[in-house]
Amino acid sequence: MPLEYKFKARPYDEALKSALQAFPQKAAYELVPVSEALGRRIAEDAYASFDMPGKNIAFYDGYAVRHEDTRGATVSNPVKLRLVGSVLKDGEEVGLRVGKGDAVYLSANSPLPEGADAVVREELTLRQGDYILVKKEVELYEDVVLRGEDARKRDILISRGSVIRPQDQVLLIETGLTRVKVYREPTIGIVSVGDELLERFEKEIPYPDSYFFLISSTLRLIGCRTASLGILRDDPDEMAGFISKNINYYDALALIGGAARGVKDYTGIGIEKIGEVIFHGTTLSPGKVSGVCKVDGKPVFLVPGHIGSATSCICNIIIPIISKIYYDGVELLPRVLAKLTTPVEARPGSYTFRTVSLEWHNDGLRATPHLKRLGGSTLITILSKAGGFILIPPGVKLSPGKMVEVTFLNPLEVLSWRST
Amino acid sequence: MPLEYKFKARPYDEALKSALQAFPQKAAYELVPVSEALGRRIAEDAYASFDMPGKNIAFYDGYAVRHEDTRGATVSNPVKLRLVGSVLKDGEEVGLRVGKGDAVYLSANSPLPEGADAVVREELTLRQGDYILVKKEVELYEDVVLRGEDARKRDILISRGSVIRPQDQVLLIETGLTRVKVYREPTIGIVSVGDELLERFEKEIPYPDSYFFLISSTLRLIGCRTASLGILRDDPDEMAGFISKNINYYDALALIGGAARGVKDYTGIGIEKIGEVIFHGTTLSPGKVSGVCKVDGKPVFLVPGHIGSATSCICNIIIPIISKIYYDGVELLPRVLAKLTTPVEARPGSYTFRTVSLEWHNDGLRATPHLKRLGGSTLITILSKAGGFILIPPGVKLSPGKMVEVTFLNPLEVLSWRST
Repeated sequence: MPLEYKFKARPYDEALKSALQAFPQKAAYELVPVSEALGRRIAEDAYASFDMPGKNIAFYDGYAVRHEDTRGATVSNPVKLRLVGSVLKDGEEVGLRVGKGDAVYLSANSPLPEGADAVVREELTLRQGDYILVKKEVELYEDVVLRGEDARKRDILISRGSVIRPQDQVLLIETGLTRVKVYREPTIGIVSVGDELLERFEKEIPYPDSYFFLISSTLRLIGCRTASLGILRDDPDEMAGFISKNINYYDALALIGGAARGVKDYTGIGIEKIGEVIFHGTTLSPGKVSGVCKVDGKPVFLVPGHIGSATSCICNIIIPIISKIYYDGVELLPRVLAKLTTPVEARPGSYTFRTVSLEWHNDGLRATPHLKRLGGSTLITILSKAGGFILIPPGVKLSPGKMVEVTFLNPLEVLSWRST
Repeated sequence: MPLEYKFKARPYDEALKSALQAFPQKAAYELVPVSEALGRRIAEDAYASFDMPGKNIAFYDGYAVRHEDTRGATVSNPVKLRLVGSVLKDGEEVGLRVGKGDAVYLSANSPLPEGADAVVREELTLRQGDYILVKKEVELYEDVVLRGEDARKRDILISRGSVIRPQDQVLLIETGLTRVKVYREPTIGIVSVGDELLERFEKEIPYPDSYFFLISSTLRLIGCRTASLGILRDDPDEMAGFISKNINYYDALALIGGAARGVKDYTGIGIEKIGEVIFHGTTLSPGKVSGVCKVDGKPVFLVPGHIGSATSCICNIIIPIISKIYYDGVELLPRVLAKLTTPVEARPGSYTFRTVSLEWHNDGLRATPHLKRLGGSTLITILSKAGGFILIPPGVKLSPGKMVEVTFLNPLEVLSWRST
């Protein structure tokens, strides 16, 4: 058996750094219609291309007036103004002018006619034929949105890297954009490795490689496209051939399993035939047998075949690297601060990945670490109880009451939150 | 002009209650493959259908032994055991037995052979032909995951109403499920109302009804399917005809605009011809002219045509009603607790909707209310700066330092979070 491949556990911080250095940024972009941009990350700052609003406009339905003309108006002693026309939204009437003692009806958001400097809300008036009675004095620019009040020309409205939300779609359209430059989502090919998975497949067990979904779904949620490339045997030659062929069709590959130190784990050996192993083995716990390789300039991720270590590898290695290469370094997983409820410490010599449950209390968010073992493949209920994780550097002990930074396992976590 | 339609502002709490009472729960369900269930809400509790794991299994690659046989083992004084076989993952060898002085090689997650009660990790051993040297004493059940340790048969693994995340997909598969019962997403038809929008459309302005995206995208993110039904004139008869026809094809309709008290706002009048106006006008600010109607037993939402009031109507009226009817009352918008930074109070007599910016500080999450006016259509940058909102009941003043409940405008908000 060709077991000459050397497994060395490099310190996690160094290992990640060397992997990040091995791949230059090469984000790609595409223009998509604003209607299809929901949830995508914008790839350049969106600026206001004109003052917003472009003119002084009415904040409410009502009457455009000169504020001076309303001086002293009260319910018992209203001021009478002459109705000289009306302006409906977007329907500016040319030549309409508010002179002394005049009023012009206008709907909210309509531009004020020349001469007007305030708006009297409809409910503060009484219509009497061609006149209105104003029952309250208004101030200069009362209920007027001034030109540029919302945004000045060239203000940054949405900054690069932000996820486009519903209100951002509206904002982009209102600034006159119909298409928006977003990051192209990298495509990640995912393959599971292991003779035992093939056996399960041959027994027609549905989803023989269930961890595929952990990786695929998480990556989809942070902005990747994924494809299932099936199951590979524990055979270094088959693996090398498969990678050399498939690396052409994807921006990156992820191999699940086959990366441990067991007698049948040949992934590292397979890769060395066709590319460079940047690191294989690191002081991340769980996640120790994670690896990053470079084949044809693209990353090939070695993902441990246990659910805890796979999750740790995805969150602590794969996502930071994808962020650097394809998203200009934008943070792709949300982070929060929470008060720790129970003590937790790093395993000796390890960057320790601990999942936590997040719960809202009267004084804010609390994080309770899961102390149950996370490395075992079958301890999969823990991940369903978790909302996020903390990464504890070697030698660090955290005491209850400390505020700790919790990273979400994926953006959907927030949908299981209840504040009370 | 047929202005006999009466506009009355009902107290928001009463109005919402009467609307909720007008529609019984009628959630519908569908079975979807687990592979397509990401982000959907599960419609029944998912139980463990067997103990997980089903047998005592190894936590690491190593050797199954009787723990007694390792007593006293140290690096300098190892214990020698006889290797009698191996068990690879899922490949239980029938009849294999660990007797006194025996060891069986097994990979992580493999079931322990009969007789064994502990696992010695591979790295704590040295292989010598058909023997191994054990360099450390192990305890009873050391590195063994006991049957049922992860979950007991009939434990609830994922509770009804939860959103299915990547790790839940894995869990569902590991419990033997291939399909999962989820809530069917209701279909919402959305139409914009207003002659001025038709004018914009005729001028070939792209996206003449930009607020469509605010409603459509928000509803899609909380679990609806939406369709654009175009633009309607300010004409009560046209509106009534349109609604009677389209209500057959959707679970609900939303009409944007045409619901204010301006001279051209006929929506209420239109609806009264064909159904029941449950309320139109409420003490929600902004959002005062929101309404809920019932046509053929289905909701027709009247959404104000200003961006602030439309958002308030979506979050405070439409989503709670959709939750009740189609999601058994599950909360569809995430809520958090945050410390208020500046004072804010309700407008007189109004449930006041205030958008807030959310920011993480050393001591937790802080909410800063936007004091800029939110009612005006063009003040749309505020919503892009906001992450959530607070709803302040009439008469309530909130002081800085108070913990307030903030509801997200949509689930994507969390992706713009940075904890530092």
